Formats: sequence, structure tokens, C-alpha cells
Amino acid sequence: MTDGVRGRLIAVEGIDGCGKSTQARLLADALGAVATFEPGATELGASLRHLLLDPGAAPVSDRAEVLLLLADRAQHLAEVVEPALASGRWVVTDRFSGSTLAYQGAGRELPTDELRRLVDWATGGLVVDLNVLVDVPVEVGIARRFGEGPDRFEGLGTDFQRRVARGFRAQAEQDPPQWLVVDGDRPPGDVAADIVAGVRARLGRA
Amino acid sequence: MTDGVRGRLIAVEGIDGCGKSTQARLLADALGAVATFEPGATELGASLRHLLLDPGAAPVSDRAEVLLLLADRAQHLAEVVEPALASGRWVVTDRFSGSTLAYQGAGRELPTDELRRLVDWATGGLVVDLNVLVDVPVEVGIARRFGEGPDRFEGLGTDFQRRVARGFRAQAEQDPPQWLVVDGDRPPGDVAADIVAGVRARLGRA
Repeated sequence: MTDGVRGRLIAVEGIDGCGKSTQARLLADALGAVATFEPGATELGASLRHLLLDPGAAPVSDRAEVLLLLADRAQHLAEVVEPALASGRWVVTDRFSGSTLAYQGAGRELPTDELRRLVDWATGGLVVDLNVLVDVPVEVGIARRFGEGPDRFEGLGTDFQRRVARGFRAQAEQDPPQWLVVDGDRPPGDVAADIVAGVRARLGRA
Repeated sequence: MTDGVRGRLIAVEGIDGCGKSTQARLLADALGAVATFEPGATELGASLRHLLLDPGAAPVSDRAEVLLLLADRAQHLAEVVEPALASGRWVVTDRFSGSTLAYQGAGRELPTDELRRLVDWATGGLVVDLNVLVDVPVEVGIARRFGEGPDRFEGLGTDFQRRVARGFRAQAEQDPPQWLVVDGDRPPGDVAADIVAGVRARLGRA
């Protein structure tokens, strides 16, 4: 507890294979923040992650997919993120609402304004203090995952990944104060140094 | 297939223990309709039903509960209800959107106007042709379930069940053309006869 001062929430975002999970962990370490992720950080979420991502799981319609991801987010907030922020901890999450708009909006081509309203309800209006976009060319993301079995999103092909990448960049361009864009096509330590410096410049954490 | 004539969708609604599952089955038989239910009629839905109802499953926040129920509905529509209606079949479902407004709106006390917008998105705007409310006093519903292990909603106590019952009646009072209210505190055969007669009078099925 830090005398009632609320913590900050930072989301690390990007396409599959961009390196954001590594970067989220390094950033959380540098900030002494709680490291978490979506989907799947709660017991409920772990079940939903299986239903959403496993190639062998039951069919999931586009609308059901959105609603399951938002259920995961609502539970994640209630169980992990909100208690940490309320106690003054900073939180770094590997994916958050930006991924919904990129994957289900740009990727699945569902109307973005409707998705924003749904996200707003699921999160009770909570928005991140900063998004970090780990930006890599789509080919780099795909190449980095080569040899791993693809999950459902990774199995959707290059065109889908391209739309998702454009969806992330469009969000960053539309709202620069909310997005720190970092070139992720470099050694992880160099990327991490830029992210930490950028976050400190934006949010003022020593 | 019946020459492109779309089928009708009827939901049988009511509190736990009101007898609606029996009545939904009898009505579907009488109409030659597809009999289905929520939550849980699809493979995805069966997993979600477990997460929603089993007393031993992981914690689920109120918002996550809504989103999971709506994911079940979206998948149910895509996989079961829409194809049946499109082929000209009539469909009788044991629970639909009326249950969301009664349980999560009146029961959980979440704002109804917000729930309506979410339901509308999850269903793509599909509304039932008729709701049948199997109306019983709350005490009758509870007594009928006596001795069964309660699921999560049944375990929420009498006050919760009372709010749910009021939530169903309020919907019926606000929109009489959409609701057929039948006294369910009678022998099942009598209740079924009234429901079949009422549905035929409203929807004109011979």
C-alpha cells in the first residue's frame, strides 16, 4: 500500500511473434510492476484461453470469440488488475483492449465502434495509462513463430496478421498520447531499453 | 426446407423450478419444433455451462458472467438456432434473452439498458417471436428443487430468486405482445395445454 496512490496500468501490444511477452516481462522487472497477461491470467481465464486458442477446441463464432475475450478481461480486472492498482502497484499486461480492436476489429473485420462500446462495458471504463506497441514487420513475426504449432489466430494466415498489424498501427496513429511505438526488429535488450526509457518519459516512474 | 419461409423462435422462460424445461419439451413436441436450451446447447456452450453453473468452478465476476452467457447465446444462434430458422423449422428454446435481463439485470442488479445493448449485439438483433413465462410463486420453484444440489444461481437464496421472478414479470408487463404468461402452479399437462393453445392463438401454427 502506498498511501492511497493508485498504480498505473501499461499494456504491451503487438502481433504474434513480435516479442511482446519478453518485453512485457522485462518492463515489469524494470518497473517493479505486477506482470500479467491476457487471455488466461485467472483460473476462469485459463479455461477460456483453452477454448479460444487451442486448434482442437470447439467451434467459436466471431461474436462468441469477442465475448469470451471480454469475459476473460472482466475477470482479469476484478481478480488481478484492479486490486493491484488499488494497492498502489503498477501493472504491466501482455495484451489488453488494444488487442481486441486489432484482432477482432481489424482482423475479423467487426465494426470498431461496436467493439469499443463492448470493451468499455467489460472494463467498466478502465483504460490503460499507456500502450506499448512492439512493432515488427509481419514477416518477422511469422518467422519467429516458425516451427511452433500455430494457435487459432496464428493459423489464420498472413492476410489476417497483416490486418491485425495495421489495426495496431492505426490505433497508435489515432491516439499518440496513449501509444508508445517501439521498433521491435532489433535485439531484445535494445528494444527493452527503449521501452523503459519511453515509459519513464511518458509516465514519470523513476 | 419450406420454400424459404423462415421459422419462428419461441423462448420458454421462468425461475428455477418453475417447470419450464418440461414445458419447453412438450411445446416443441406439439409444434414439431427443434427443442434447444441455454446455456450449453453447443460444444462450446457445454464448457461454458460448467464454468457458469458448477458450484466448484472458478470465481466469475458479474460482468464476466454476463459475457459468458452472451458468448453461449452467440454460439447457440450461429450453430443451432439460425440454421434451423433459416431452413423453415420452428425453434423452442429453454431460456433466451429474457433470462439475461431477469437474472443478471433484476437478480444481479446490473443496469438493464446496458444489458439490452449487449444482448442486442450478441444476438445480432434477433428477438424471439414469443416468450412464454411459466409463472410460479418463488416458494413453489424452490420447493420443487428441494433435495437437488443447487447450481450457482439456485444457491443465491430466496431474495435473489424473488428479484429474478419480478424481473420476468416486469418484462411481461412492459411488452405484452411479446409475452404469454401461464400459471405454472398446476399439473404439467394443464400448463402445457394452455401454452400450446396460447402459442397457436398468438403465432397461428395449426
